[in-house]
Amino acid sequence: DGVMYNNEDIIPGAVETIKWLRDQCIPFLFVTNTTRMNTAAIARHMNGLGIRSVPDEIISPPGAAAAYMKQHQFTSYHLLAHQELNIAFKDLEETDDRPNVVIVGDLGDILTFERIDFAFRLLMAGADLLALHKDRFWQTEQGPRMDTGAMVTALEYASGKTATVVGKPERPFFDMAIKTLGLPPNQVVMIGDSIETDIGGAQRAGIEAILVRTGNYQFLSESESGVIPDHMIDSIADLPVLFS
Amino acid sequence: DGVMYNNEDIIPGAVETIKWLRDQCIPFLFVTNTTRMNTAAIARHMNGLGIRSVPDEIISPPGAAAAYMKQHQFTSYHLLAHQELNIAFKDLEETDDRPNVVIVGDLGDILTFERIDFAFRLLMAGADLLALHKDRFWQTEQGPRMDTGAMVTALEYASGKTATVVGKPERPFFDMAIKTLGLPPNQVVMIGDSIETDIGGAQRAGIEAILVRTGNYQFLSESESGVIPDHMIDSIADLPVLFS
Repeated sequence: DGVMYNNEDIIPGAVETIKWLRDQCIPFLFVTNTTRMNTAAIARHMNGLGIRSVPDEIISPPGAAAAYMKQHQFTSYHLLAHQELNIAFKDLEETDDRPNVVIVGDLGDILTFERIDFAFRLLMAGADLLALHKDRFWQTEQGPRMDTGAMVTALEYASGKTATVVGKPERPFFDMAIKTLGLPPNQVVMIGDSIETDIGGAQRAGIEAILVRTGNYQFLSESESGVIPDHMIDSIADLPVLFS
Repeated sequence: DGVMYNNEDIIPGAVETIKWLRDQCIPFLFVTNTTRMNTAAIARHMNGLGIRSVPDEIISPPGAAAAYMKQHQFTSYHLLAHQELNIAFKDLEETDDRPNVVIVGDLGDILTFERIDFAFRLLMAGADLLALHKDRFWQTEQGPRMDTGAMVTALEYASGKTATVVGKPERPFFDMAIKTLGLPPNQVVMIGDSIETDIGGAQRAGIEAILVRTGNYQFLSESESGVIPDHMIDSIADLPVLFS
């Protein structure tokens, strides 16, 4: 979102750039913080916009959260996020009864006080807090909307616990993407629209990063973050020209 | 709540202690962070439990917020709290159109994502953030429930703004209570059940503080806060004995 499309609108040239990558046999992944849909739904959404893609080409926070849980021998979870995300945790037990972790993602309009308060009580009873990401807000045509990071912070404050964050800009998330590509970091480049989340995160993970002037770009000041992209292009459409 | 009564249950001896204070002509105020009711409703609630009281004897955050707004020449507000609190702001304009401040209090079960997201957008459009208090949670018979401080923190994180907090343990709130009593601080004592909010706040405002072992007391560890009460009593029932 913001690089390939803005919600329901394809970024002009995105379809052609993906086709060019496939024609050139350049391996790529879509690395997103989206937690409103699972990877199958994201692939469907992109295919609907004309971008040919399959779920395995998409790295999103639920998969990283499942990997984190297995690595730390966590076996059960409560999901404070869209229910369809549970497909990423299919080897783990979903429960409301003393889960190991509470996983927080985007709930949007269906978030109620009861749901967040229930998650708070699970934390007070001993669960760990796992945040799919900690973004402050996201841009819509109607202006900024509060994002998952706000609810993560609310739960941290009330419970006194500190969340483990799995999505961008966290280094393990980029490391997972690089490992999935099977390439050395110096042969990988990140393309993103968020100066801190995409560009800063990628650079800290040891890969170059290209900022596109679409999506979040227009809303965030580069100067504030102190992050300097390795390259800047107007949009994903200009990627083939930059490479040549 | 927690000193005079626990929700619907009077603390044994509370009625007699208030009667004793009136008989002795000792001036007193009820100083509460409650934002689920306005002062008229709190007085009604206490009268219903047998504690004779009038709204003017109650100092609660909405009145302090109104005083803060006037002091800073703010004229308009949006209320993210129970609607009945607006009686405290009757000289000020309630509006959804670019208010000077967003006031955050307890909404409990009626809090929706849309309401908090709307408040977030007002903050992004320029409003200041005014928190009636920043308590983490409150105790119920069903266990702890997330309190206003969590939503204040969510709005701070998403908007990048820092809230001005008006309730306990903030010093201006205790100063307002002391000024209302019209007594020098060395003739005033605070009685509370929260080691940090009541006792710590009172002591920093220069008055002695008595911790009661009712309400929040059972849930909070004194040792963690580093605050040492000037006196401790089992409950408000023991106040006359302590005084004599």
